[in-house]
Amino acid sequence: MTCALHPGIRVSEIFGPTIQGEGVLIGLPTVFVRTGGCDYRCSWCDSLHAVDRRFRHDWEMMSPDAVWQKVIALSGGQPVMVSLSGGNPAIQPLGQLIDRGHGEGYRFALETQGSVSKQWFADLDVLVLSPKPPSSEMTTDWAAFDACLEAAQDKPQMALKLVVFDDDDYAYAKDAAARYPQLPVYLQPGNHTPPRPGDEDGFIDMAGVMRRMEWLVEKVTRDRWFEARVLPQLHVLLWGNKRGV
Amino acid sequence: MTCALHPGIRVSEIFGPTIQGEGVLIGLPTVFVRTGGCDYRCSWCDSLHAVDRRFRHDWEMMSPDAVWQKVIALSGGQPVMVSLSGGNPAIQPLGQLIDRGHGEGYRFALETQGSVSKQWFADLDVLVLSPKPPSSEMTTDWAAFDACLEAAQDKPQMALKLVVFDDDDYAYAKDAAARYPQLPVYLQPGNHTPPRPGDEDGFIDMAGVMRRMEWLVEKVTRDRWFEARVLPQLHVLLWGNKRGV
Repeated sequence: MTCALHPGIRVSEIFGPTIQGEGVLIGLPTVFVRTGGCDYRCSWCDSLHAVDRRFRHDWEMMSPDAVWQKVIALSGGQPVMVSLSGGNPAIQPLGQLIDRGHGEGYRFALETQGSVSKQWFADLDVLVLSPKPPSSEMTTDWAAFDACLEAAQDKPQMALKLVVFDDDDYAYAKDAAARYPQLPVYLQPGNHTPPRPGDEDGFIDMAGVMRRMEWLVEKVTRDRWFEARVLPQLHVLLWGNKRGV
Repeated sequence: MTCALHPGIRVSEIFGPTIQGEGVLIGLPTVFVRTGGCDYRCSWCDSLHAVDRRFRHDWEMMSPDAVWQKVIALSGGQPVMVSLSGGNPAIQPLGQLIDRGHGEGYRFALETQGSVSKQWFADLDVLVLSPKPPSSEMTTDWAAFDACLEAAQDKPQMALKLVVFDDDDYAYAKDAAARYPQLPVYLQPGNHTPPRPGDEDGFIDMAGVMRRMEWLVEKVTRDRWFEARVLPQLHVLLWGNKRGV
């Protein structure tokens, strides 16, 4: 139940614990809270079931307390990193959930494209900002992105994560990194065969994913961009496009 | 050329830049300096060409300056993380190399089993201690291991890295982590099909590596060991047993 004092969180799925497959927390056990809804619509979105409004009937409006109870149940009450993802989790009211979890020793990582900022970003433990490169067909509003950094007030551990499909994306990644030299950079080769909603066990071009990873490693090392980390989506290598693992 | 003032470093291979495939620096571009010789002989060693004395004729005694010139050439003079590995790099005189590199903005990460300590551990930027579990058929001398931590004086970033093949290894990893609660833990599934020297492009049981990774993720999450990170050897997933990448 939700009310004015406890605004509801639009939830697509809550699952785990499993390991984080990407970026700065790669390999760390985590419970995922994937929210529904997004202000973007990236051409290669790999979470359309949490983005496309056609699937909104699969989303559930849950109170912070209900979300919290689910996290507790999945983690057995043992403090764990909670990964807030989406869709764009920044458009959901997550401040109360974070406060509640912190009271019990849990930590919270949020990943967002940086289009919407919230004051509670400063309460996060980890904030991953993932601006979307040209191949996404989205346009980055850098003023909105800057507002996310300002809201965070340097309190969470922060990182830039950039998906790279091609040379244009790579150039965008270098520009973004130059714009925020204080942020560690994680580059991730794109998946040209993302899951289609309702067909999450579908074909994945693993050889293509690997080739793109090799290409990116080669590009970064030849370019002597020695501060950037290059990491694949570990969960894709392990489990393909399967959901909930 | 080496002399009393500049003791020689026994080098198996120097290569890169490529990305670090394991542990705390996974994904980071790095130049590897792999030293020759080891006081251990793990049953599943994946670097026998740098361990087994049968291959000592492939090793080269190099002055710190000669090693440094090679690192400079590979990195184009652009500061990069240098990964000191082996064999056991702790049995080599690496202090001067580290000083020299620091003077030019390079950083140094060393990985060792923790059997031999050196005062210059305190000069490292990253120290990965990787005690060997029962499946290695080695016995850990914890007093020697403690001496490594003492030598480091908490100055480098430090981490525990533990290879896990089976339940006994897992129990050993939990014990080691409990012994050093201040150190972040990285668990790594073992590779049952390590390269044989001279046959580095040989068969690798990739499905087995993946199964062991899934088993380890399952074990850690069911056990609610939420502080431990689980990471595969990324270079093995990308390049199999091929050397020099």
